[in-house]
Amino acid sequence: MSLSVPPCLRGDLVQNLRALSVLGGVRFSSRRSKAEARVTKCRPKSSTGRRLQTTSAGKSWPRLRPWPSPEFVRDWPSCSLATTRHLASTADLLDLIESLNRRDDIDGILVQLPLPPHVDAKKILVAVDPAKDVDGFHPVNVGFLSTQRPGLVPCTPAGVIEILNRSNIPIVGQEAVVVGRSDIVGKPAAMLLLNLNATVTVCHSKTRDLPAVCRRADILVAAIGRAGMITRDFVKPGATVIDVGMNKVTDPGEFARLFAGNAKRVETFRAKGSTLVGDVHPEVTETAGAITPVPGGVGPLTIAMLMFNTVKAARMRRGHGVPEMAHL
Amino acid sequence: MSLSVPPCLRGDLVQNLRALSVLGGVRFSSRRSKAEARVTKCRPKSSTGRRLQTTSAGKSWPRLRPWPSPEFVRDWPSCSLATTRHLASTADLLDLIESLNRRDDIDGILVQLPLPPHVDAKKILVAVDPAKDVDGFHPVNVGFLSTQRPGLVPCTPAGVIEILNRSNIPIVGQEAVVVGRSDIVGKPAAMLLLNLNATVTVCHSKTRDLPAVCRRADILVAAIGRAGMITRDFVKPGATVIDVGMNKVTDPGEFARLFAGNAKRVETFRAKGSTLVGDVHPEVTETAGAITPVPGGVGPLTIAMLMFNTVKAARMRRGHGVPEMAHL
Repeated sequence: MSLSVPPCLRGDLVQNLRALSVLGGVRFSSRRSKAEARVTKCRPKSSTGRRLQTTSAGKSWPRLRPWPSPEFVRDWPSCSLATTRHLASTADLLDLIESLNRRDDIDGILVQLPLPPHVDAKKILVAVDPAKDVDGFHPVNVGFLSTQRPGLVPCTPAGVIEILNRSNIPIVGQEAVVVGRSDIVGKPAAMLLLNLNATVTVCHSKTRDLPAVCRRADILVAAIGRAGMITRDFVKPGATVIDVGMNKVTDPGEFARLFAGNAKRVETFRAKGSTLVGDVHPEVTETAGAITPVPGGVGPLTIAMLMFNTVKAARMRRGHGVPEMAHL
Repeated sequence: MSLSVPPCLRGDLVQNLRALSVLGGVRFSSRRSKAEARVTKCRPKSSTGRRLQTTSAGKSWPRLRPWPSPEFVRDWPSCSLATTRHLASTADLLDLIESLNRRDDIDGILVQLPLPPHVDAKKILVAVDPAKDVDGFHPVNVGFLSTQRPGLVPCTPAGVIEILNRSNIPIVGQEAVVVGRSDIVGKPAAMLLLNLNATVTVCHSKTRDLPAVCRRADILVAAIGRAGMITRDFVKPGATVIDVGMNKVTDPGEFARLFAGNAKRVETFRAKGSTLVGDVHPEVTETAGAITPVPGGVGPLTIAMLMFNTVKAARMRRGHGVPEMAHL
């Protein structure tokens, strides 16, 4: 089924957002339509994804992107970014964050992870004003999510819920199994599903008989970071599978395990020397009732939710309610 | 098996605490020893449990108990309490909490719940300085628990982990099922078990086929608040059952369902007109491998963990580490 711009972003406050261009329709593939799902509308012109840039010394450095307040969002694509053009120290970043926290014209701050090892990432994340923490990683927002107070929810898990809701997949009373317990995806996804009345199990590397636990799932969320690990025997026929993984495959043996017989992929792999695959093996499309594609599934929704969080942060900071998608 | 004073409370900082008198050994009953477990050592002379007092108008009012800093703990039983002797408003309570937050000689603040309906409980809980929040209910501490940062953990779930650890019941890789998803018990208990590498499922009123889900559990935590709801068919033979419930039974029919044939209980019930029972039906003692009793199980541990949290708060506020029980 095809998805359109979320109603939450149709409010008068944001109706002219050019930033809406980052929101495309995402096709949600079903077992019957074997065509892989893809972004069906537009792509962001400037990437809003998480990327690391590399210095000439080959070290990664953090980039912070202050999100403009709604008044300025129409001009957002041309906003200058407050970036650190050198190997920033923890103190440098704390200073920068403090100055962004103080600025009333800044509604959202996104710290692009991972930070290089010489920076104390936990200290940096905690320094962001929770009211501007559009990533939803601040402990205050984590606590708000758990205790069902209004706050900013991590983008990828929010996108998982959004894709379920827009696809009319029931959550209440369903068995949901989340594989992976990261702070960024697994734990908040589990908390959102629990708050929406699913019976939630969280699995991880220490889980005994992982396939059997996964087979209980009506909704299976894979967020492990291992290419194609979730094979057919992990999935109950008809289950909904949300694939959060995004793994680059370069090894021909691994490629063959995942895509043997897929002529188009073989061709691309030969040309580029790599391909992207989620945590779910492509064979699962034959077992699942519905499955998100990789690429083009959860990824674009994550970007959309980041925009949603920015608008939400702007509204909340100004005392406006957040009437739609309030479950997030 | 019998339990003794936690090593965490043996440090030189607290060696003379008279408050240790609230820590008793708690017997952990097994299926083989059918004797009900009980507090085997001492009881607190002055109650540290959660109670509501009632005004002459029959309304409940909140009582706040500022915990003294360790230097004063030896004199703790005679410390005066900052109580509100009238129907306090939200503003009154916020003022009181603010003054307690500012006092350097106060290390812990406990807001006794439930607060009366005219008071905004969520506002009050958020007003407590997270560093003094010995209940562990503040969103910051909830976030710290989820993201595994050092913080203060809710007492009852901490007691659940403590009783498992002291009873040498393995957690890693075990299937843990938590029935109930309250902010006070269910969610933090699930998070602690997950952080300790159990495979954790959280159930609730919307869970389909609750008995079947519970029967998966190697460790079953019952925190529902319904007398004897967890019957034999919810429990896998040999499972460990932690009963967090504490329900007063006054109805003879319900009493009979729970305690028929238990001569001692029948006698007590006849004399007092009521008895206490957990969320787990007494018949489960015949199925479980180990089970906590009610009363005298999780309850006293909760009080002990409140003391632990107070000492932990005092140490953390002074920059000392918390070397033992650091998983909490």
